[in-house]
Amino acid sequence: MFLTGYPIEDLALRASFRRASKAAITDLAAAIADQGNGDLVAIVGYLDEAATGGPQNVAAVIHGGEVKARYIKTHLPNFGVFDEYRNFVPGDATLVVRIHGVDVGVLICQDIWHDDGIITELAKRSPGLVVVPNGSPYERNKDDVRLALVEKESRRMGAPFIYVNMIGGQDDLVFDGDSMVVDGQGHLIARSPQCEDGLMLVDLDLVGGSSNPDVIISEDVIEQSTPLVTAIAERTSMEEEIWKALVMGLRDYVEKNGFKSVILGLSGGIDSALVAAIAVDALGADRVHGVALPSKYSSEHSLADAQELANNTGLHFRTMPIAPMVDAFTSNVVLKGLAEENVQARVRGTTLMGISNQEGHLVLATGNKSELAVGYSTLYGDAVGGFAPIKDIYKTDVWALATWRNAQATEDGEVAPIPVRSIEKEPSAELRPDQKDSDSLPDYLLLDKVLTEYVDHDRGYDELVAAGFDRALVARVIGLVDGAEYKRRQYPPGTKISSRAFGKDRRLPMTTRWREGK
Amino acid sequence: MFLTGYPIEDLALRASFRRASKAAITDLAAAIADQGNGDLVAIVGYLDEAATGGPQNVAAVIHGGEVKARYIKTHLPNFGVFDEYRNFVPGDATLVVRIHGVDVGVLICQDIWHDDGIITELAKRSPGLVVVPNGSPYERNKDDVRLALVEKESRRMGAPFIYVNMIGGQDDLVFDGDSMVVDGQGHLIARSPQCEDGLMLVDLDLVGGSSNPDVIISEDVIEQSTPLVTAIAERTSMEEEIWKALVMGLRDYVEKNGFKSVILGLSGGIDSALVAAIAVDALGADRVHGVALPSKYSSEHSLADAQELANNTGLHFRTMPIAPMVDAFTSNVVLKGLAEENVQARVRGTTLMGISNQEGHLVLATGNKSELAVGYSTLYGDAVGGFAPIKDIYKTDVWALATWRNAQATEDGEVAPIPVRSIEKEPSAELRPDQKDSDSLPDYLLLDKVLTEYVDHDRGYDELVAAGFDRALVARVIGLVDGAEYKRRQYPPGTKISSRAFGKDRRLPMTTRWREGK
Repeated sequence: MFLTGYPIEDLALRASFRRASKAAITDLAAAIADQGNGDLVAIVGYLDEAATGGPQNVAAVIHGGEVKARYIKTHLPNFGVFDEYRNFVPGDATLVVRIHGVDVGVLICQDIWHDDGIITELAKRSPGLVVVPNGSPYERNKDDVRLALVEKESRRMGAPFIYVNMIGGQDDLVFDGDSMVVDGQGHLIARSPQCEDGLMLVDLDLVGGSSNPDVIISEDVIEQSTPLVTAIAERTSMEEEIWKALVMGLRDYVEKNGFKSVILGLSGGIDSALVAAIAVDALGADRVHGVALPSKYSSEHSLADAQELANNTGLHFRTMPIAPMVDAFTSNVVLKGLAEENVQARVRGTTLMGISNQEGHLVLATGNKSELAVGYSTLYGDAVGGFAPIKDIYKTDVWALATWRNAQATEDGEVAPIPVRSIEKEPSAELRPDQKDSDSLPDYLLLDKVLTEYVDHDRGYDELVAAGFDRALVARVIGLVDGAEYKRRQYPPGTKISSRAFGKDRRLPMTTRWREGK
Repeated sequence: MFLTGYPIEDLALRASFRRASKAAITDLAAAIADQGNGDLVAIVGYLDEAATGGPQNVAAVIHGGEVKARYIKTHLPNFGVFDEYRNFVPGDATLVVRIHGVDVGVLICQDIWHDDGIITELAKRSPGLVVVPNGSPYERNKDDVRLALVEKESRRMGAPFIYVNMIGGQDDLVFDGDSMVVDGQGHLIARSPQCEDGLMLVDLDLVGGSSNPDVIISEDVIEQSTPLVTAIAERTSMEEEIWKALVMGLRDYVEKNGFKSVILGLSGGIDSALVAAIAVDALGADRVHGVALPSKYSSEHSLADAQELANNTGLHFRTMPIAPMVDAFTSNVVLKGLAEENVQARVRGTTLMGISNQEGHLVLATGNKSELAVGYSTLYGDAVGGFAPIKDIYKTDVWALATWRNAQATEDGEVAPIPVRSIEKEPSAELRPDQKDSDSLPDYLLLDKVLTEYVDHDRGYDELVAAGFDRALVARVIGLVDGAEYKRRQYPPGTKISSRAFGKDRRLPMTTRWREGK
């Protein structure tokens, strides 16, 4: 699906989109030849149709101005963020194409994850090389899983694998590249860095004429006397890997949707500071607008820390006290307690959206995964925004990423972007006097452990209690998570970095009488 | 899935939920016997597990305090609102159970929609009766499709069918019941009304001992000398059918989620009037709170029409002018043009949410499908709410439903709820002087035709132009629909009544360069 973007979702079900995809692959084949590159063999993913009209996930083998062969994806993932049974009709046949005398097998993405599936059929045909285009979304640690798989399968096949993955963000997914070449003994010989666009040239010693190809493109063997030097990109720290994914996810949402700039509220706290730092890395300081929106409950350091962040990063900064608008609400609509707390958040949201409408910026929501999990946010208040860069980052990881980014800056001889006090001070929403997150939530270190088990690993009440967590704590956290489902439904999209992000990765009814541990 | 609710979505993937479901079906079997009804045979849908641990959609045959037999759903729908490949492992075996000497075949829902599937296997076993529990969501006209199917399949099977469907709402789905019994020649002999809970007793002349059953529950034949009188509920008009679905969808969202009351803004326009009338029918006037939120651009008739609606229906009514809050924004944050229009809508949204937080009402969003399609709504403004009762109703149907409901009231000798002027006046958002919807949108009659083709029937630009619609109009409408995807993502849930509702029924990327007709 390199041609159409991925996931294409229900666009696959629209006849006009299928026609356009088929026309575009034909045009692409012609354009490559028209530019004098007709000898080049290009393998490009796109959407095609079965004879019955059903949509299919296909890799085209392009040569000489035409599509010479097609491979149809056989194994359709239908879990996590994937809905491929919904959108595609599976193929059931292997493809081997002879290119410069080498018999090249083609598979697509999920096809190599099923040991007893189409990959075994391909192995019986003993290809001399296997090429696998992928639309494999980033998740932390997934690069290690991919490498281990490609090593194992190339060894089993006894042929080198070229594993090519998409680069870039689309809505809540980031494709991190991490393309790699593994030889026929399962040894990694080339690997691209994550989240960086680029071109990798690799030359391989290949066995020719090993199979009976379905299509012969060329028989002439190519000799290269001076081998190209290939590179294996070093793995980075977990923090750097996640940071790059968050930066790419935000940048691509902004650029691909035609926004010139972003705006966010700066509370002086760590969440908005982290989002601001990501935005500056993604877009440059000149395209980032921060607004301090102090209320009567804001502490002095809030404004100072927001100002320091602005100074450190160079983003555009303005201050807009919310008292006049809040007073207008509280004196005309009687609002007390939680209602008064929420109106402050909503006045901030309305102010940011107003400036966005006036000046054209995309509003960023700054909530983290811990808050989103327990519903510790105000609908139409701090939850406003077109994109939520850290919605899949637990609070403890928010701190870790901020600390890492500052250390990185210091190492590079640059100003650390995030004020130290924003990292070190006790979290507070500052919606009433002397409020602290810890008044109403467990310590984040403990909370995030419970949330990771419940949300990311699907462990229920009994399993959590058996694992040693306090019964009352588990019941309370689970109750908060279940009760906040309606809020998450209306929350903006944001980059997935975990194996279970909120959104289409985790689909639950809002209306259900089921409660864990009751 | 009568036991768990449907759809259960990713709850199926949680081991604790599967354990709880299995325990509940065992408890239910025991409870029926404990109450002295051990002789009763009950067929109940629930979630079970395959030997491998995978979740399965199962119908339990309960008798004598135990589950005597299980049928596992074979055909798993994975289109529209359904994600069953994601959540279930399919079964592959028929079940025939002998009850009072009659061999009863059991199938589940989608199983009867595949002529060459498990239903054909069951036919080979010649059951004397087929029982089919269903979780079949309401769509307009679907009752006709269901009846035709059950008639055809019972004729093919040569045995009576008992088709039983769920009743009630869950989030955006309404299950309308419409349970029916068809004899072995394909003639309808009993049918329950749509959207009404109830118990139907039907007696049938059945052929005994027609198969080799997997399980024998009882051999004794029951004779009934005075046949029960069965009823075939009359079909209602399209408007009445939709009205009942909307009323049940809202009522069940409110009741099942524990809300005592609802609140909504009353503009004097037709959309909010229709939602108020639905809410009063669903909950009674005493649980419905309407708020007029006039601005300097509101016309005189707006307040008068809102007041008349309140008088007609008896709902709680208050007026809260938004000028002080809007002025606070416009004088502290410079907002002009669209930004000023939007701030009015957001002040209204914040006011409603404030009252909701203070008094505990669920906020209802009043947007219709035409507005939602073209993005003619303000995020965090008129789009606020926990539920959006008419989000799947096009504007032309809004008028038709309002007219029908008034006529119905008159026929019943009651006061017509909706002010005639609200139905007849030209639609306007009243966010700037003399604004009319027709300033920026095509006539709704024409707009809704294009939207129905594009959204509900997946017809693209070329097909629409070929069907005779104006090129510029089609391009403009399609552009508006595609560009509003991000707004729909954050819109509250609401009752699905069409074959393609916004939400999980229509899944599209926000980030895509594809535009129809460009």
